[in-house]
Amino acid sequence: MNILYDEHLDGVLPRVDKRQLLSALEVELPDLTVLSRSEDLRPYECDGLSAYRTMPLLVLLPERVEQVQSILRICHRLQVPVVARGSGTGLSGGALPLEQGVLLVMSRFNRILEINAQGRYARVQPGVRNLAISQAAAPLNLYYAPDPSSQIACSIGGNVAENAGGVHCLKYGLTVHNLLQVEILTVEGEKLTLGAESLDCPGFDLLALFTGSEGMLGVVTEVTVKLLPKPQVAKVLLAAFDSVEKAGAAVGSIIAAGIIPGGLEMMDNLAIRAAEDFIHAGYPVDAAAILLCELDGVESDVHDDCARVRQILIEAGATEVRLAQDEAERVRFWAGRKNAFPAVGRLSPDYYCMDGTIPRRALPGVLNSIAELSREYELRVANVFHAGDGNMHPLILFDANRPGELERAEQLGGRILELCVSVGGSITGEHGVGREKINQMCAQFNAEELTAFHAIKAAFDPAGLLNPGKNIPTLHRCAEFGAMHVHHGQLPFPELERF
Amino acid sequence: MNILYDEHLDGVLPRVDKRQLLSALEVELPDLTVLSRSEDLRPYECDGLSAYRTMPLLVLLPERVEQVQSILRICHRLQVPVVARGSGTGLSGGALPLEQGVLLVMSRFNRILEINAQGRYARVQPGVRNLAISQAAAPLNLYYAPDPSSQIACSIGGNVAENAGGVHCLKYGLTVHNLLQVEILTVEGEKLTLGAESLDCPGFDLLALFTGSEGMLGVVTEVTVKLLPKPQVAKVLLAAFDSVEKAGAAVGSIIAAGIIPGGLEMMDNLAIRAAEDFIHAGYPVDAAAILLCELDGVESDVHDDCARVRQILIEAGATEVRLAQDEAERVRFWAGRKNAFPAVGRLSPDYYCMDGTIPRRALPGVLNSIAELSREYELRVANVFHAGDGNMHPLILFDANRPGELERAEQLGGRILELCVSVGGSITGEHGVGREKINQMCAQFNAEELTAFHAIKAAFDPAGLLNPGKNIPTLHRCAEFGAMHVHHGQLPFPELERF
Repeated sequence: MNILYDEHLDGVLPRVDKRQLLSALEVELPDLTVLSRSEDLRPYECDGLSAYRTMPLLVLLPERVEQVQSILRICHRLQVPVVARGSGTGLSGGALPLEQGVLLVMSRFNRILEINAQGRYARVQPGVRNLAISQAAAPLNLYYAPDPSSQIACSIGGNVAENAGGVHCLKYGLTVHNLLQVEILTVEGEKLTLGAESLDCPGFDLLALFTGSEGMLGVVTEVTVKLLPKPQVAKVLLAAFDSVEKAGAAVGSIIAAGIIPGGLEMMDNLAIRAAEDFIHAGYPVDAAAILLCELDGVESDVHDDCARVRQILIEAGATEVRLAQDEAERVRFWAGRKNAFPAVGRLSPDYYCMDGTIPRRALPGVLNSIAELSREYELRVANVFHAGDGNMHPLILFDANRPGELERAEQLGGRILELCVSVGGSITGEHGVGREKINQMCAQFNAEELTAFHAIKAAFDPAGLLNPGKNIPTLHRCAEFGAMHVHHGQLPFPELERF
Repeated sequence: MNILYDEHLDGVLPRVDKRQLLSALEVELPDLTVLSRSEDLRPYECDGLSAYRTMPLLVLLPERVEQVQSILRICHRLQVPVVARGSGTGLSGGALPLEQGVLLVMSRFNRILEINAQGRYARVQPGVRNLAISQAAAPLNLYYAPDPSSQIACSIGGNVAENAGGVHCLKYGLTVHNLLQVEILTVEGEKLTLGAESLDCPGFDLLALFTGSEGMLGVVTEVTVKLLPKPQVAKVLLAAFDSVEKAGAAVGSIIAAGIIPGGLEMMDNLAIRAAEDFIHAGYPVDAAAILLCELDGVESDVHDDCARVRQILIEAGATEVRLAQDEAERVRFWAGRKNAFPAVGRLSPDYYCMDGTIPRRALPGVLNSIAELSREYELRVANVFHAGDGNMHPLILFDANRPGELERAEQLGGRILELCVSVGGSITGEHGVGREKINQMCAQFNAEELTAFHAIKAAFDPAGLLNPGKNIPTLHRCAEFGAMHVHHGQLPFPELERF
């Protein structure tokens, strides 16, 4: 699975004259930190998707917006591809470097510029860590809601690029729902302000368009996020089921009853046992599935909702429903869930974490189909996921040292994502497309839809210099992959093929 | 203010061969309703912004998506501009027809296709009225949150085109926050699905880009909206103040305390007296300003919040705080607010309703400046607005029969919108830009930002056939208007001037 170079970019991107680039950087940006020796580049060869590795041409570590602006102008002039990167925790290879491109590392932009209680927002630089925003807002009893598992390390600029999610997105939305404004630089180094401090903004909604665009439309230089008041109390219910279908159906019943939990998570038996062995969270190890349902808000409201959810769970066939009796037990219940990935990692030399989304009503059927696929490919699959919003994270267990297992795992992963699409879902919930899922985009979208994406890309970056080879596949790639929806017997807009 | 033709479109749009167009429609769509006689066209010459009127070339009333598809293909082939329209209740002239274009009326697409409680969504045709969705969902105890004042008449397709708001948007968001998916047809009649039934969707966020694009990127043919559970109870507090500044400051304090009211509305003395004379809502007619604060949710929660808000209002200097004692009084409090526009209309032969948004913290200062401008232009201004989200609706009172008053009213309106921009706000909150505020867009955005809009437009509609002359001004227009931010001494991208 080590991809050293994306063959689809061959002949598309120009070869870069490294000496010319280095000398331009030296003349125009004498105080810029530039890494070019192979031992210095090594730590940057991958992001959180470590199966894919490429050594970048150069790593640039600017500290001021003007430096970023000059870098973009130089790269634009010399036609050098640019991959921007925050903390590098992304799981889909969105920040995977290019052999023939610079890696623009934004981690030195780590200042919190303003916390405003009345406007209820925080204005920060893109390299600020997700959790650092909530920590800075805590004295005002406010916090930033989206909470990816990597929140201790991941940066807000990367969150914007990937439209990051988290356990609490069911109630509080994805990154895009929690932004007011971003400042970006275009591929030519022009500064644009997208969104506004106020709720609505006229013109096209470029803020939403930019969020989740995976570094293909510009580089984030400042982010203004909404802050929310901290909920007074949070309670967690744990429910055990003797079948995953029943647990899946219970999720739908809770939502249909008009309750919006702060978090609603599901684990199947393999995941339960792995987590219990590792964390001793107190999970029922014989259950086929458990649900963790967190209810947050004001005391009395949470109390009422707990009673209603308990009733729904029992009616849905739960064999046991437990309310965490104190804060320590609540934290323990969550610790099992949050450490489920490393816990499953202890069961198998390798695992492959998927990220797909399905409509909630499809949960029971899809869980069944995944079990069937698991038997067909003779690979174990653990299911741990954000059940409330239908965002699944099946973990495929394999041993890369056994011949053929890696390939089988990849094929099984592809089948699971296609299953998600076939029930009206999507190939990513919160990890993004990046390099990893670019082929599955061909199953997700038809030629007209991909063409609309290409036209948007061309509107911002006609030469295709920003993060090429990620997020949006070429129609050519889709035709090769064999999943292209060909319309009227022909590929539309062949002139857009250069992306 | 009667604009019969937009001189900025002269020489930009081709002349249409009406006979050729009629014959193409007749051959390819023999059963399509086509209106072409002047008396049939008259009812369509304006939308809710009735000061602007233009007779369309033809009015087309399709009933099936295939017909819309054929219309778009024919118009694309013959290079005929197309203005799509729903119920025509918009207040910024977004559906103002073109003398040399067809008006595509979508009101016959009025079927509710699906109400799904578990998925908590409704799938409807674009001509379905906003309120009809909530009515259809009521038996399931669900509703659609965005509630423009025109909700009894306005259509969901128009809501998508304008990103409509309403009294409850502070808590529940604008249209864009309440959509899951839309089906559109491109200018070439290609069908695209934007968004997904699930929370996240990979690729660029074209759903958000399309929402609020005012008919410039495509035509909506189907909409899937989110439904919310109906709140158990709603209570309204009325607070009186002896200055508008104090009322404005109280709004900020409520929000900063972490309370999110269902609605938070403000009226000044002129509006209070007008509404009281008209509706007898029980408002204190001597107050300089009142706030109406609705709190909704579960019983106990609402009870606690009412107590907290009352305390904040008193600390902010309220001279009186009243809780509506029963449902009848609650409805009466709201009736005064909801009829404030016609009530103010009784004070003056004409009035001009503005729509600007400002950051909440700027409320007291902006209200003061509006009072100063009112004195400078010798025109009364009544203030009635969604205070909680900073969305202002100043009503400028004038008499069009007195020479010069109309012009003074327009100038004053322009100054108020520029004031909104200068404090970091925007020229529209929920009414859109349309034809009305196209010049103010030049003050809102700089040349680079407008260029990004033009590039987006070109990506979807390179010939500029969809609703030309609305929403996004040409750089040429801005240069004439004198508000263009010229960068490096030149207008960028002159080749994009054709929009």
